[in-house]
Amino acid sequence: MEGICGLSDPVAPGITPGSAPGHLALFGYNPFSFAIGRGVLEAVGIDFDLQPEDVAVRGNFCTVDTNGVVVDRRAGRISTEKCIELCQIIDGMVLGNTRVIVRPVKEHRFMIVFRGGDLSPEISESDPQQTGVMPRDIAALSPEASASAAIVNRFVDRAKALLAEYLPANMILMRGFSKRPHLPNFSEIYQIKPAAIASYPMYHGLARLIGMEILETGESIEDEFATLKNSYHNYDFFFLHVKGTDAAGEDGDFGRKVSIIEQFDYALPMLLNMQPDVIVVTADHSTPATLGAHSWHPVPVLIHSKWCRTDSVTKFSESACIQGGLGRLSATQIMPLAMANALKLNKYGA
Amino acid sequence: MEGICGLSDPVAPGITPGSAPGHLALFGYNPFSFAIGRGVLEAVGIDFDLQPEDVAVRGNFCTVDTNGVVVDRRAGRISTEKCIELCQIIDGMVLGNTRVIVRPVKEHRFMIVFRGGDLSPEISESDPQQTGVMPRDIAALSPEASASAAIVNRFVDRAKALLAEYLPANMILMRGFSKRPHLPNFSEIYQIKPAAIASYPMYHGLARLIGMEILETGESIEDEFATLKNSYHNYDFFFLHVKGTDAAGEDGDFGRKVSIIEQFDYALPMLLNMQPDVIVVTADHSTPATLGAHSWHPVPVLIHSKWCRTDSVTKFSESACIQGGLGRLSATQIMPLAMANALKLNKYGA
Repeated sequence: MEGICGLSDPVAPGITPGSAPGHLALFGYNPFSFAIGRGVLEAVGIDFDLQPEDVAVRGNFCTVDTNGVVVDRRAGRISTEKCIELCQIIDGMVLGNTRVIVRPVKEHRFMIVFRGGDLSPEISESDPQQTGVMPRDIAALSPEASASAAIVNRFVDRAKALLAEYLPANMILMRGFSKRPHLPNFSEIYQIKPAAIASYPMYHGLARLIGMEILETGESIEDEFATLKNSYHNYDFFFLHVKGTDAAGEDGDFGRKVSIIEQFDYALPMLLNMQPDVIVVTADHSTPATLGAHSWHPVPVLIHSKWCRTDSVTKFSESACIQGGLGRLSATQIMPLAMANALKLNKYGA
Repeated sequence: MEGICGLSDPVAPGITPGSAPGHLALFGYNPFSFAIGRGVLEAVGIDFDLQPEDVAVRGNFCTVDTNGVVVDRRAGRISTEKCIELCQIIDGMVLGNTRVIVRPVKEHRFMIVFRGGDLSPEISESDPQQTGVMPRDIAALSPEASASAAIVNRFVDRAKALLAEYLPANMILMRGFSKRPHLPNFSEIYQIKPAAIASYPMYHGLARLIGMEILETGESIEDEFATLKNSYHNYDFFFLHVKGTDAAGEDGDFGRKVSIIEQFDYALPMLLNMQPDVIVVTADHSTPATLGAHSWHPVPVLIHSKWCRTDSVTKFSESACIQGGLGRLSATQIMPLAMANALKLNKYGA
């Protein structure tokens, strides 16, 4: 084989990563230093173009009784269609200098963005995390945030009035007020021109947060490779994301996972024929079909380049890759290795 | 085999180390915490005995036209013999309380040390890094450094006058004013009495910076082992440096690299016969002959001692050592392991 293999810990041994820290680590950002708030992640997850001053928060439609006490925090998991309809009802309010943008996510979940008015995310959550109590009033957690708390409370009051007739989704709960984190620009860090190719919006959103350009593509792996081929000479770094293996793992469907890996293998010559200086194949986390969820297990990593110092690994599996020339490494080390293999890094010290 | 092997990252995965950070890491110093300035490194490289208050800087002889504009930053790469001659002309000035020491390095490059007068290295560089402009005046970068800038400017004026007739080397440029870094003393850290054996001056200089004694030796590996044998009972730690493999790698000469390793293997029984408690064999960086330069690749490491817990590795190569009992480790972990294998470290905690 022509590459060098290893086993990568996406975040740390024993830690199961969400997609955000898993990807940040792959891009070389310490996932403990750069936390992405729940609200921001919800916005990222629907590829919403979050502005630096926006305050984002995750919303749940919930059910309250006539006394205003929460009886179901998820409003019976209403359908996504219902969620879309209800979001339109509470979207677009203007409160002072602040505009409120509401977008559906899935079932009872949605995203709220407060734009304008110099708002702070330093405010408390309204979700009481239990039934039998009232939603909490939003309170300022720092002196500068009192105006923000007042605006958000006004939004909640109006939303409650507008939703009164839509039982079981007659109220909202909010968690995770957050602003877009100050992530160093990927292109500036590495002095390259990067593009992202991914069929799922979440990965667009993550790539956009670090300043990658997003290329439109189709649903299949072959579509993604074709997009790469068409833009090959316009960029010098591509992040290409294959979603299917993770989704199949989440569904516990081992056979489908195998089939998606086979589709990837079938399409791979399209990439190899372009003869890039460096190819890295790896994952942002493990999703074992037996577990049916993200897991903490380290993931295989393969680096292919003229300078990679080939090892004797002949299979791209966890058990084979731990025998590889890279040994066990942290995911944050992959980008420096990729850049080194592209001969893009200078010597450190004389 | 009787040792335990692994693969060591000299600085960090993907990072190609210069000799200074590579060696600092081997000696257990974090190479990011202890940076060595360009001027100091130039002094170290010629094994100049730099004092703590000296300000050192790298000098270039350059060519200026009649208007004083730089037309060649390297004075046509004059010969080292010419450099020696010119350094003698500008060496030895006394400016107030400061004495200026000038020593040749190679071709157009030389070292300048400003000794005495309580000088600061917080001053700007004169090298404009381009032709077509005048050399820059030295300016103070902190209020305390104004006297230093004045002294250095006086030196430049006098040097220019002295060199006027030596076209093409009729002017000097300076980069990297720096003082000897405050490196903790190796002997105090490890409570051992160390000596350095190296045929190249750069490695003397590095060893001296951390307080090692330097032993005179010859050019060959056998000379170095003989020096070790003669001083064996006067020290309890030896740093023995073999230069030839690196030089052959830089020259892209794979055959010569092999031959030097064979010379080392031939001489090795001299060392083994002394039966030291611990032997470590490793490198400060990789220099693949195919690349013809230092590289980021991790390097093999072997620890030999009664207590090392022998592994099954039978070859001292990169691909064999990653299978070894040490796995992949950081170079800064080697000294603690060596000390532990010498039973020189106490238990941590009760």
